[in-house]
Amino acid sequence: MTGKYVYNFKEGKKEMKELLGGKGANLAEMTKLALPVPPGFTLTTESCKRFLSEGQTIWDSLDNEIENYLKDLEQITKKKFSDKENPLLLSVRSGAAQSMPGMMDTILNLGLNDQSVIGLAKRTANERFAYDSYRRFIQMFSDVVLEIPKVHFERIIENAKKEKGVELDKELHADDLKKIVTQYKEVYLRETKKDFPQEPSVQLRLAIKAVFASWNNPRAVFYREMNGISKLSGTAVTIQAMVFGNKGDTSATGVAFTRNPLTGEKQLFGEFLLNAQGEDVVAGIRTPNEITELKALMPTGYQQLKEAAKILENHYKDVQDIEFTIEDNTFYLLQTRTGKRTAQAAICIAVDLYKEGKLTKEEALMRIKPQQLEQLLHPHFALKAIERATRIAKGLAASPGAASGKICFTAQAVELAYEKGIKTILVRQETSPEDISGMVKAEGILTARGGMTSHAAVVARGMGKCCVAGCSEVTINEEEKMLKYKGGMVHEGDLLSLDGSTGMVYLGDIEKTKPALGDKFSELMDWVDEIKTMAVRANADTPEDAKQALEFKAEGIGLIRTEHMFFKENRISSVRRMILAGSAKERAKALDELLPMQKNDFYQIYQVVGERPVTIRLLDPPLHEFMPVKEEEICRLAETMSLSEEELKNRITALHEVNPMLGHRGVRLGITYPEISRMQVRAIMEAALDFKLAKNSEVQPEIMIPLVSEVKELVYIKAEIEDEIKKVFAEKGQTLTYSIGTMIEVPRAALTADKIANEADFFSFGTNDLTQMGFGFSRDDSGSFISEYMGKNILEKGPFDTIDQEGIGQLVKIAVEKGRQTKPNFKIGICGEHGGDPVSIEFFQKLGLNYISCSPFRVPIARLAAAQAAIKYR
Amino acid sequence: MTGKYVYNFKEGKKEMKELLGGKGANLAEMTKLALPVPPGFTLTTESCKRFLSEGQTIWDSLDNEIENYLKDLEQITKKKFSDKENPLLLSVRSGAAQSMPGMMDTILNLGLNDQSVIGLAKRTANERFAYDSYRRFIQMFSDVVLEIPKVHFERIIENAKKEKGVELDKELHADDLKKIVTQYKEVYLRETKKDFPQEPSVQLRLAIKAVFASWNNPRAVFYREMNGISKLSGTAVTIQAMVFGNKGDTSATGVAFTRNPLTGEKQLFGEFLLNAQGEDVVAGIRTPNEITELKALMPTGYQQLKEAAKILENHYKDVQDIEFTIEDNTFYLLQTRTGKRTAQAAICIAVDLYKEGKLTKEEALMRIKPQQLEQLLHPHFALKAIERATRIAKGLAASPGAASGKICFTAQAVELAYEKGIKTILVRQETSPEDISGMVKAEGILTARGGMTSHAAVVARGMGKCCVAGCSEVTINEEEKMLKYKGGMVHEGDLLSLDGSTGMVYLGDIEKTKPALGDKFSELMDWVDEIKTMAVRANADTPEDAKQALEFKAEGIGLIRTEHMFFKENRISSVRRMILAGSAKERAKALDELLPMQKNDFYQIYQVVGERPVTIRLLDPPLHEFMPVKEEEICRLAETMSLSEEELKNRITALHEVNPMLGHRGVRLGITYPEISRMQVRAIMEAALDFKLAKNSEVQPEIMIPLVSEVKELVYIKAEIEDEIKKVFAEKGQTLTYSIGTMIEVPRAALTADKIANEADFFSFGTNDLTQMGFGFSRDDSGSFISEYMGKNILEKGPFDTIDQEGIGQLVKIAVEKGRQTKPNFKIGICGEHGGDPVSIEFFQKLGLNYISCSPFRVPIARLAAAQAAIKYR
Repeated sequence: MTGKYVYNFKEGKKEMKELLGGKGANLAEMTKLALPVPPGFTLTTESCKRFLSEGQTIWDSLDNEIENYLKDLEQITKKKFSDKENPLLLSVRSGAAQSMPGMMDTILNLGLNDQSVIGLAKRTANERFAYDSYRRFIQMFSDVVLEIPKVHFERIIENAKKEKGVELDKELHADDLKKIVTQYKEVYLRETKKDFPQEPSVQLRLAIKAVFASWNNPRAVFYREMNGISKLSGTAVTIQAMVFGNKGDTSATGVAFTRNPLTGEKQLFGEFLLNAQGEDVVAGIRTPNEITELKALMPTGYQQLKEAAKILENHYKDVQDIEFTIEDNTFYLLQTRTGKRTAQAAICIAVDLYKEGKLTKEEALMRIKPQQLEQLLHPHFALKAIERATRIAKGLAASPGAASGKICFTAQAVELAYEKGIKTILVRQETSPEDISGMVKAEGILTARGGMTSHAAVVARGMGKCCVAGCSEVTINEEEKMLKYKGGMVHEGDLLSLDGSTGMVYLGDIEKTKPALGDKFSELMDWVDEIKTMAVRANADTPEDAKQALEFKAEGIGLIRTEHMFFKENRISSVRRMILAGSAKERAKALDELLPMQKNDFYQIYQVVGERPVTIRLLDPPLHEFMPVKEEEICRLAETMSLSEEELKNRITALHEVNPMLGHRGVRLGITYPEISRMQVRAIMEAALDFKLAKNSEVQPEIMIPLVSEVKELVYIKAEIEDEIKKVFAEKGQTLTYSIGTMIEVPRAALTADKIANEADFFSFGTNDLTQMGFGFSRDDSGSFISEYMGKNILEKGPFDTIDQEGIGQLVKIAVEKGRQTKPNFKIGICGEHGGDPVSIEFFQKLGLNYISCSPFRVPIARLAAAQAAIKYR
Repeated sequence: MTGKYVYNFKEGKKEMKELLGGKGANLAEMTKLALPVPPGFTLTTESCKRFLSEGQTIWDSLDNEIENYLKDLEQITKKKFSDKENPLLLSVRSGAAQSMPGMMDTILNLGLNDQSVIGLAKRTANERFAYDSYRRFIQMFSDVVLEIPKVHFERIIENAKKEKGVELDKELHADDLKKIVTQYKEVYLRETKKDFPQEPSVQLRLAIKAVFASWNNPRAVFYREMNGISKLSGTAVTIQAMVFGNKGDTSATGVAFTRNPLTGEKQLFGEFLLNAQGEDVVAGIRTPNEITELKALMPTGYQQLKEAAKILENHYKDVQDIEFTIEDNTFYLLQTRTGKRTAQAAICIAVDLYKEGKLTKEEALMRIKPQQLEQLLHPHFALKAIERATRIAKGLAASPGAASGKICFTAQAVELAYEKGIKTILVRQETSPEDISGMVKAEGILTARGGMTSHAAVVARGMGKCCVAGCSEVTINEEEKMLKYKGGMVHEGDLLSLDGSTGMVYLGDIEKTKPALGDKFSELMDWVDEIKTMAVRANADTPEDAKQALEFKAEGIGLIRTEHMFFKENRISSVRRMILAGSAKERAKALDELLPMQKNDFYQIYQVVGERPVTIRLLDPPLHEFMPVKEEEICRLAETMSLSEEELKNRITALHEVNPMLGHRGVRLGITYPEISRMQVRAIMEAALDFKLAKNSEVQPEIMIPLVSEVKELVYIKAEIEDEIKKVFAEKGQTLTYSIGTMIEVPRAALTADKIANEADFFSFGTNDLTQMGFGFSRDDSGSFISEYMGKNILEKGPFDTIDQEGIGQLVKIAVEKGRQTKPNFKIGICGEHGGDPVSIEFFQKLGLNYISCSPFRVPIARLAAAQAAIKYR
């Protein structure tokens, strides 16, 4: 196999990233723009792939190509690679198609040896510079190629400075550096039993092989795994003529953003070091100067930087992150790439670029990663603080935000601390309705069990409260009030921090940054609403949730989980009595107690939502979820029900199911106990009619039936609830427009959607359950093996985070097609967790869904993602 | 709406069953065959439907039609309906499209009144006959039309006989009967406050309305529900000129089968009564004579019956069940229908009809209901005994057969009783591996929890042992050794009987009939094998199971559930230590212990199965299923493992899952603990190679991976096990042909079957899990609501009994199509419970599956069903 494995900068362009890596492609692009780029060439990612697959050897034709390109380089620079007098020195840098900052290796000043260092000193009339360059080269080469620990070299330079009584490297003179070079070479000999290679072509060959091989160093492999980079097969290697920022005080090296990446302000932002090489800036040994100071020190260089920045930004139409070097007052560009930025900056920059006429609204919108908005909506740990923090475990990122506080193992402890103004983290095996008061008052919630839709997770998301759930890496002992983690233990009152956006758990308190939404955010979100075609609703179970959702411009409520209303303290007892009733009469009594409360729930929500659509799902979960677990609660309930404790326990046990997720829940409850559905529907309609009378405003409730798997279930329950609605209308002497639809969350429902559509006014996908049943993955139990699957590359993404388009997506597609085959303009939405996930939202846009619904705090993210999806697929 | 609602016998034919009912259609058919059928006409099932839907009124045009047909009848019979001298008397009988014996009503002798009874007496010169007919009419009319309790009439006739000192009705004379008629009419007046209607047309109208209405009497509704008759909308009413079997000793009435319905022998079989009307035979007041006696008493009549029987059998090509009447030595046919028969008779008759040249092999095969064969394979309760038994509950028909014995609540109690030669029924909340010794020695097993694939059900089916599982109608208290049922309670030592074919539980001991397979069965089953195109394999976990399966001519083993081997007493401890191991080393040690045992398991099975295909499924169930539950077992295990009881309990608790069916099981176990899969595969291959060496015979193991949902799972585990196989081959210096396939039991696997087929050598559908996940119905928990669904007509059949073609069937179809899209001749089978269900087997034939696999005792049923399916869909 032969072929072209090397390209010089004139042969490449920015579109060739896959082949030349980001660095190589952008150096070529800048060369084409006639910007001052030192000449060079790039070995392609394909050559790396071949190198790795052929037992890490370099084949002849590649050797030849390198030799030829090197000759060109000698001609252009008018230097010779192996020349003693006027040596061509090279940088050898890795660069993959996707940025992997700091993960692979770089060698500077390659080509120096004991002879050419003398020539360089003479030619530049700068002996100090020459030896400084040489000692840097030896150090980097030893590190990268031979993995000799850096500490050996650092110790030598430290000793030299101590002996001389100076603090900074630049205070060392040429003679000092000469001695250091000698000592460095001794280290090299000691560690490798060989002399430091003097032949530049040998140096280059070894350097190239080392950079290729660095693709598979553990750090790079780990980085790719963590960042989900799985499609790349190697790094490119860019070989470039050196320019020197360490030639004295007319030289410098630095990095600059074309705009402020923290705020988005339109101003150069960055830092530089005088008389230094690139790695000094990164290493943080010397404190760099702010970029604005360059103006005074090197006005020409600064001016050139400004112009280059302008050209690059206009060309790339985005903020650039630039590396530059000034050698003897001559400005060179060494790299440019898209600048990473905070969410706030991203928004500011996108809006400004549109206003400057550089981007269309659509292009500007596409620049914001929807996930980034989360930073704006919740507090986050300060980046620097988190680097120093001690991470002790990782659970599920169940509800975003950052929280710190003292550990409490009971809701009562949280409440006590709250009264004293102490911030707390509620730590529980898993939460139950009895913990809600504590959840409200804690800063964050940590549970050891339960998945993304466990009680803790769902309630916390509704509240917008930070929660890490299902953290199976820790052991929680509620009795003894301690939390064990791998390597240690904490107790009640100890400080703990949670990152609900990543699932990380840290020891101690960690500094947080506050969220901030500005005018530019509003402006951008206005464009979002102009552009997107799917409606964005929110899942909200309380008036507070609904209010929050509307503040984020939700267009309606896509899911009210009525069971969450059942958990409220003042009614859970009635709910329990309803469930455990020994007779229809007892049940009717409990339902009578619940009716006014449910009615009031709905009335309150109608007051917030007004005439926007409101989808109300009838009771869904298995009944045992409502049961008391604590002895004292059971005892109290038995009293209320005039039952012996034993009898009550028997009734509770009878509700036990082996696989509750596949058990007696959803519409199945409504079919067994139509009176429960009737009560709920009565509450919905009575509240709506009262509202109509009081406000002269018509709500249009959408009643949603959960867990339908067969159209006849829907027929059955519809007959029941329509009969009840007729009665309400007759009693009130008033009617109202309403609709009755169904969740599509059981695979069989998707497969028979044509029939179900005949009986339904709308579909709403419950993609959580659809994923659960489609994969056979219990949300509550699959956490451990799903992460193992991701580690072993069996799954790319957690299927509960992003919808699995290949499999579960087929069910969604089938249901959409079959539903619209029956009713061409059928209204179809989705109210599962995936409704807030940008990648999933794109998929729903492709399928032609009418709306998505997600938790209130994800509404802005979903809106932006919907707009981006509309741009891609309209 | 008008139309034709009445047909006379010349207008109908046997194909018009839907419209004329079975009775009406067959009377018409016999009329066409010129057999002696009294003339008459039939009101269609459509007229009944209309009658019921129009508030039970008869519309004018129907009245007119009836009048016209009545006039025809008068002409043919040369009698007049309202004539005093020569009255036309009628029978009015119900008859639906499907036989519902005894469920609806009949009235005879309609048309008699105080006047015409005198005319009839004169004309027939038989006063006794006339009044006997009249009193019968009054009694039947009162019963059917006015629901006057029969007991009033019976008391009168009893008194009359007592007064006279006679025993039999026929010993009553004309005068006695006249008095009885008077008394009957008094009863009528007393009960209805009206005189008995004298006008024949009024009688007829009331009778028709009553028969129509009887369609919805509770007993008919219940019968239809029990027998799954849901598509019929009404009964036909046949009105026919009376002929009289009660005209003296030259008259008789009877029923006859053209062949013996118990044994299948070719001989008339039936009974008759001299001087009687039809209902006397049914009522059982007088003991009828055997049909052979008719020959001597009425040679002409007997001859005519024989000839009619022959003509009918030749015409219908099946055994007929005939009703006849002989009036004054003249023979009349009143009904013919296909004769119901025992399984043994069905087989004998089918084989004989083929040999007689009346049926082809295919036609003969289609005559046997596969389900019927169950009667031949297991003991059954004697029909008459069961009628007298007290039924106390119904559970799932988990493993067929009939069993009686003393209740034992523990395996130990069973074993103790067994030693004393006492038969027992093991009654448990649910069984666990620790109960196996007791299960072996009990006659039958009853559990209160667990579904069709619970431990009890699966193990019992493997053993061919009667089991009723998941009988939630009873409460079992193992501590206090009692079983509560609705209305009572039984204790240890009380007698109980189980019908594993119906799920019924009875009090006491019940007489059983032994199974018997004869030569004709073998002959028939040989044809089955000639005709069927799908292979039939068995699910077998032990050599004994395999042996039983081969005796029933299974063509291989379609499923070995290796986990059942793990439950054996002598190894469960190693299994538990393997699962609960704290380190890989501990686990390896336990696996080393298990390896020789597993290897021996496989070797034993290979010895039975030889070169037939053997599909071995790797470990499937959630690990917690293997855990001890009893305190003492836990204690013992903790000792063996040198752990504290607390620590052991913690490890067991850690295995707990909220929804184990969707948890860490199947291939997921293999991915987490590849060493388990490796041990199993090593055992499979080492045993196979040893067998090859010892027997010079090559087994071809098919290794099957359970619960795959994503092709990469298969890729991963295949790499592991192929590596292990290579090692075994290298160690033994021998190789073997094997294949690696996968279950398709997760909806996502079906949807992505094209990709999975790339990596698999075969598919085997696990339709239990596919149903479970496709419907979202937990097998263990859905029993209660599935039966509610069937009661409410939401489901027609239990989806775990017969595959749901509409929904789950789509997944099977998709997987077959996608699998064969990737590999056109891909081998596909099914090893779920549905593999033994005839309706499901027909569906699998339609889809083109290569084989089905079911529990050993269902193999003959599956073979016959497969042959029938092949006949229908080849």
